[in-house]
Amino acid sequence: MESKKQNNNRKNIPANAKRVFKGVIFDVWQWKQKMFDGSVEIFEKLQRPDTCNVITIVGDKIMLLNQRQPDWKKEKTSLAGGRIEEGEKPLAAAKRELLEETGYVSKNWILWKEQNPSGKIIWTVYTYIARDCYFKQPPHLDAGEKIRTKLVSFNNFLMLSENVDFYEGELKSSFLRARFDKKYRDELFNLFFKK
Amino acid sequence: MESKKQNNNRKNIPANAKRVFKGVIFDVWQWKQKMFDGSVEIFEKLQRPDTCNVITIVGDKIMLLNQRQPDWKKEKTSLAGGRIEEGEKPLAAAKRELLEETGYVSKNWILWKEQNPSGKIIWTVYTYIARDCYFKQPPHLDAGEKIRTKLVSFNNFLMLSENVDFYEGELKSSFLRARFDKKYRDELFNLFFKK
Repeated sequence: MESKKQNNNRKNIPANAKRVFKGVIFDVWQWKQKMFDGSVEIFEKLQRPDTCNVITIVGDKIMLLNQRQPDWKKEKTSLAGGRIEEGEKPLAAAKRELLEETGYVSKNWILWKEQNPSGKIIWTVYTYIARDCYFKQPPHLDAGEKIRTKLVSFNNFLMLSENVDFYEGELKSSFLRARFDKKYRDELFNLFFKK
Repeated sequence: MESKKQNNNRKNIPANAKRVFKGVIFDVWQWKQKMFDGSVEIFEKLQRPDTCNVITIVGDKIMLLNQRQPDWKKEKTSLAGGRIEEGEKPLAAAKRELLEETGYVSKNWILWKEQNPSGKIIWTVYTYIARDCYFKQPPHLDAGEKIRTKLVSFNNFLMLSENVDFYEGELKSSFLRARFDKKYRDELFNLFFKK
């Protein structure tokens, strides 16, 4: 079934585009593009499932994941999160991924960022803040995941801006900004922890 | 002809991977990946031509481009640069793109950054600093380019960190860092301008 999400994303691809490849993650679209001199060339864009990240607040700490996947040479630091399934709402995916990967839940969710990391890929990354998280049940990991969790302070969390093994690169500049800009840091602290 | 560059990039893809699609820009590779529980899944990565950026120093200013491409709804701010052709060295590509897009040349080049913006795409971005640039000949634009150039001060250049229409997003966090961290800013200023 073609979901609403698919149809909405379709609008970012020219109407005359054709899907020329359907992959496991990536689809490839091509279209005939009229150039400035009137000539025509084949243009190309990718489409991939949207993804979600979860900033997991536990008490006065933030939960980070040390994650390994079967094709990675070493462990990476990451947030909870993953691919949004076809027809699934972003917030529902965030809740599902948090529970599967960590066993934690929250009743207090904020959508913090909605980013498009690449001009050539139709792909949105939704980053949520899950406040007041608490443990519900043991994690349920995919065959392609090895995950350890740890709790870090707000200041250590912001140091992810310097971590070359941090997986969610699209968030690094916000953490960098918070380290240097007190006003922005205070806003972020309140978003994470303020009752 | 398969170039050396292609062969070098090939090492970032598992040896048993097969190219399942060859596009205008993107190739798709797939392989059978053994999971942690012994099961097997199809994994997928993309490969695209490497690209180069040029930070174009002219006197005590830096040249920015206002660029339009046929499928963009509005103009973007960018550096000179573009795709590295098959078999072409990154520095040669940077010199070619600078001359084609701006008509300027330099005898004083520094490789500033070599970045891999995406974990799922085999793709390196080389960013050069071209010092002491001077005008040689009129630009020679592709049918897919409309370009105006302008000169900005060092401080205005760093404000690209805030520009949502700046094309080379992988450089923004360095400019942000330079705005806040005086030591880093001084180092960058010297790289750009010091004789």
